[in-house]
Order: sequence, then C-alpha cells, then structure tokens
Amino acid sequence: MRKTLFWENGGLMLLDQTALPSREVYIRAESCERVAAAIKNMEVRGAPAIGLAAAYGFALGALSFVGAGPEWREHMKTVARVLSETRPTAVNLFWALRRMENKLHALHAEYDVTEPAPEVRAAFAAALLAEAEQMAVEDERDNRLLGAAGAALVPENAAILTHCNAGALATGAYGTALGVVRAAREAGKNPRIYACETRPCLQGARLTAWELWRENIPVTLITDGMAAYLMRQGKIDLVLVGADRIAANGDIANKIGTYALAVLAQAHSIPFYAAAPTSTVDLRAGSGDDIPVEERDGDEVRRLAGVQIAPPEVSVYNPSFDITPVKYITGLITEKGALSPPSAAALLKLIS
Amino acid sequence: MRKTLFWENGGLMLLDQTALPSREVYIRAESCERVAAAIKNMEVRGAPAIGLAAAYGFALGALSFVGAGPEWREHMKTVARVLSETRPTAVNLFWALRRMENKLHALHAEYDVTEPAPEVRAAFAAALLAEAEQMAVEDERDNRLLGAAGAALVPENAAILTHCNAGALATGAYGTALGVVRAAREAGKNPRIYACETRPCLQGARLTAWELWRENIPVTLITDGMAAYLMRQGKIDLVLVGADRIAANGDIANKIGTYALAVLAQAHSIPFYAAAPTSTVDLRAGSGDDIPVEERDGDEVRRLAGVQIAPPEVSVYNPSFDITPVKYITGLITEKGALSPPSAAALLKLIS
Repeated sequence: MRKTLFWENGGLMLLDQTALPSREVYIRAESCERVAAAIKNMEVRGAPAIGLAAAYGFALGALSFVGAGPEWREHMKTVARVLSETRPTAVNLFWALRRMENKLHALHAEYDVTEPAPEVRAAFAAALLAEAEQMAVEDERDNRLLGAAGAALVPENAAILTHCNAGALATGAYGTALGVVRAAREAGKNPRIYACETRPCLQGARLTAWELWRENIPVTLITDGMAAYLMRQGKIDLVLVGADRIAANGDIANKIGTYALAVLAQAHSIPFYAAAPTSTVDLRAGSGDDIPVEERDGDEVRRLAGVQIAPPEVSVYNPSFDITPVKYITGLITEKGALSPPSAAALLKLIS
Repeated sequence: MRKTLFWENGGLMLLDQTALPSREVYIRAESCERVAAAIKNMEVRGAPAIGLAAAYGFALGALSFVGAGPEWREHMKTVARVLSETRPTAVNLFWALRRMENKLHALHAEYDVTEPAPEVRAAFAAALLAEAEQMAVEDERDNRLLGAAGAALVPENAAILTHCNAGALATGAYGTALGVVRAAREAGKNPRIYACETRPCLQGARLTAWELWRENIPVTLITDGMAAYLMRQGKIDLVLVGADRIAANGDIANKIGTYALAVLAQAHSIPFYAAAPTSTVDLRAGSGDDIPVEERDGDEVRRLAGVQIAPPEVSVYNPSFDITPVKYITGLITEKGALSPPSAAALLKLIS
C-alpha cells in the first residue's frame, strides 16, 4: 500500500484521494496554502491524515518564510490560521496545529529569541519538520496499538459494517477502524467487511472498497440505505467506524450517516464501535452539541463526478458529519485501550 | 406536468425516466417486448406505472398478433409471460396482467370462440386497449382518493420525508405518496418535502426532486444517510413512502432504504406512513417474508451515470427493495381510506 502522505525533497506528497479509485496520483504541496487547499478540497481527508497534513503544512509555512525578522511571528500566526480555517469538525487538525505551535514556542524559548535570524529560522523550520515527521511515526504506532486493542473485541469470522473511510487513507498508515480490521486479520480472525458507499463523497466506494480490495481483505460494497436491511437479515455482526471528534462525554462526530448506523445497530442489538486515536478527544466539547458540524456545497449532492443527477435549482441540505450520542456507542477504541462502555469518567482517566 | 405514459396512434408513449432530469424524452413502444424491456430497464418504474405499462403491453401483444387462429391463445399466454418476467417485487404488475387476462377470458366467453377470426381478434384487441385505458383512468381517480385520505393525516406546515419516487412519475398521474402531498397542498396545508436521493438509481434526486420542483412544491434534497440526523434535529414531522407490495399482515416491500427510515422514524417517535392503491395488496403473501426481493446488477452501485465510482472488481450486494414489518408502520393509506394502525383484519376488510 502506498503512503497517504509523506515528505520528499522539500515538499509534502499527498495521494490525491479525489482521483481514487480511477487514478493513483500524488499532489506535491510546497506551501501551507496548497496544503490548506488540499484539506478543503478533500484531496487529503480523514481526521488523522488532516492533522498530519496540517503539521507538515505548518513546517512548510516556516520553510517558506522570506520576510524580515520582525514579521516572523505574524507570518507563523497566519500559517496556523490558514491551515485551521479549512474544515471545522475534525479536531485532530486543531490538535496538530496546537502541537506545532507549542513546538515553535518551545524553540523560541530554547533559543531565547523573538526575531530569529535566518540561520536560526532554518533551524526552527528543520525542527518543525522533524516534529511533523515524529507525529507521522506516532500516528502509525498508535494505529497499530489501537488495532490490537480493537481486534480483541472482534469475534472470529465477523461480518463488520463500516462507513466512510477510516483506513490507511484516512491516517498516515494502517488506519483506525480499518486498523482494527487489519489487526483482526493478522490475528487470524478472518473478518469480512461490508462497506457503505457513503454519499455524497463516496469515500466508502472510492477509498474503503479500493483499500481493502487491494489487500485482498474480503469486502462487499453496499449503498447507505441498505445497511438496515442487512442488519435485519442477520448479516452484520458489528459496526465499526472512525471518529472526527470525541466529546468529553463520549459523544462522537463522524461522517454523515454514522448516526443512522448507530441507531439501527442498537435496534438490531448489534454492537457499535468507534475507533480513533486519543488526539480525537476534545475535552472542551462537553457533548456532541458543542461540536461544529461542517456544511458543504449542495453540488456535492446534486452532481456526481461531473454528472448532473438532480435539477441544478433544487435546494440541498449537505451536512458533512453527524453526532452520535454516547448511549448508542458500545465502545470507543483508542491506542490507549478500549472503553466499553464509554463514559466521561473513563475517557478522562484514559487520556490523562 | 406531462404524463408518465399514454396511448397515442397505436403505440404506448413512455416518458423515459432514465433520462430525467437532464432530458424529457418519450419512448414509443409498439410491441409487448419493448414494453417488457422498458420495465426491466426502469425506463418506466413505480409499481402502479409498471402495472399500467404492462396492461398496455398486453393490448399491444393482442394488436400485433399476425398468426393463424389456433396460435392465438398460445400467443397471448406468451405475451403475459414476457411481461410478467420483468421485475418480481411490485405486485401491481401481476395484478394488472391478471385483470387483462380475465378480460380476455370474458371476451372469449362473450363471443363464445376459442380461435377467433381476424375481425373478432381486432374487436378483442380494441376491448383490451379500452380496458388498459380504463385502468389508467381508475389509477388517477384512485390516487386522488388516496391523496384525500392521506391529506387528512398531514398536519399544517408539515416537513415530510419521502424516499424514492411515489409520485406522478410512478403512476399514471398524481402519485401515491406525492399524491398525498399534492392533496395536502391543495387543502392549504403547505407541506415541505425532504427527498432522500435513493441510491443506487437516484429516483429521489432525479425524479422526486424534479417532479416537485416543477410544481413549485418546496423540496430539499438529501442523501439517504442524512435522514436520521434530520430526525434527531426535529426537522421531520412524518415519513411518507409508497409501497411495491403489501402483504396480508400489513408488512410492505418498498424501495431499498425504506426499512431504515421506518426503524429510524420509530426511534425518533415520528409517524411513518405508506401510501399505495389496494391493487398493491397481495393476500397470498402472508407476511413480508413471502415477498420476493429483486437483486439487480452490481454495476448500478459501482457505476453512476457512466462514471466508475468503485473498483470494477469489488463485490456488491444490490437488493432493489427491502421489507418493512407492519410494527413500524403507523398507517397504510389507500384509495379506500387509511388504516392506522394497519392490521391483517383491517386490511382484509378494506379490500373485500
């Protein structure tokens, strides 16, 4: 499996996820603005991958600074703002930018300068890039830990329903929900996957089906409206999704359609798990009601791959995410272990 | 609104529903085989419209007979078989064909012939065509009666969620579920519609959004996975769908995705209604388990409007319908009145 994103000769290489599955092409981003555009356009998507891209984008912002010493701090504030004003829901973006800003503050403190000279700025940029690289290493390590914690919850020969793409493509590598699938498979448990296509942007059809098919993990594609019927037929053993933000009480924001699956799973007595690194937890959001939900352009629904599928004049409501209350969640799976059932107290204890 | 189907100068004109909303073009069918192909390809779709098309197709079969007298009966049996072997789930198809066959038997009895002479066959064909025309008249009349019965159940300013297309396009005219919407509007109740796009064939986006937008009935298009989130936000007052077959106990078969909406509506304490003429009731099906569910080609999911949206090699499960048990159905709305709640006894009483 080729990497979702990696650093190469002074630029960030991003596997263009809008071109999959037809074409495997990389975008080369050499500025924080290009990284921001890639996040906004969903050329890179998936909460952990967005966080990593933003971290590299922050380093690119430092590398590209050509102004005078006094402008440095303002420039880096702008870099952080440009990257943060891309997508509002996934918290990993803000988490990653905060970590990079903290690293920058620490460098300022360490070097004891406010207006670093060019050679000092070069050292800063190198250190920021190293921080982003370190985050990518930790991301893969954490996904493997998360996968192992989740695999313990997966029965032998389980039929797992998933939504959107919480796979290697949504992270630096290995994946979160699909990391659990990979770990279950490595443990000889033979999981089979049903992938919801995930309208409007079809991450299930374009990315999850592709990612699993490429690794010969058995996958069957369905439309989002079929999930309930499969549950009723006894074809689903568990539901396993990612998360873009986890509130302090255990509510999650995830791709639109997730909430439906959670309610339907409960109605059919099927366990529902969400898998995400602890960087997805936002303790400042008391509950899901505090999580901002991005709404995107209606043409994502009215058009598909350049084809008009509804009258152009028709109104569209297009929230990109929904909120699943913790009461529907059987367990949260993180790199620090699984919480089943999740609770505010258990979540706080886990991440402190 | 142009008609979904009508007879013109010896041929059946069918509004090509696969070309909507981009192009409004009619197909002219001059043989029962062409009508059968149109049903199979979904150029005409919607349970009542399929029934009417089959009735006209039966008349076309009679009109096109050019053999010798002894071959007549065999020919008409073949006509019925060709038309019946198109789509298995909607029962209106079989109901319409049975009515046409009964009409033919009655004509044979009336004329007291088994091998009718050419001029007698011409009279038979004319009578069969008149029967099809009569069914189209009754369809529109029944839809208006059904609409009035349903409108009484719709509150003022209701936000109504619908799925697929149970509109004028699914019938001869006026529609079933959308007939209720039209009647509620005519009664000054100002209904607003949320239309699920209804993957894989997008009848909601292509047909319902188009049909309502053309009549200035307020409509907002959503993807199927969004419905639950709207319900949670209190944006939906009731769910209103059609039905392709109603079993004796009140279970319904309808477009895939309906069952999910019914379970989700119940979880959110939102009423769920199905609207269909009594010709959709199949007393020989004791429950939904006795209704055959059509599975269609996986490319309907893998491809969209000629665009490959998933790897061509990926497995797909593509049932076209699902079964909604009666326990999720607040009411069945028919031209003979509404049953709320539906029950086997009430249904039997209604149709006898």
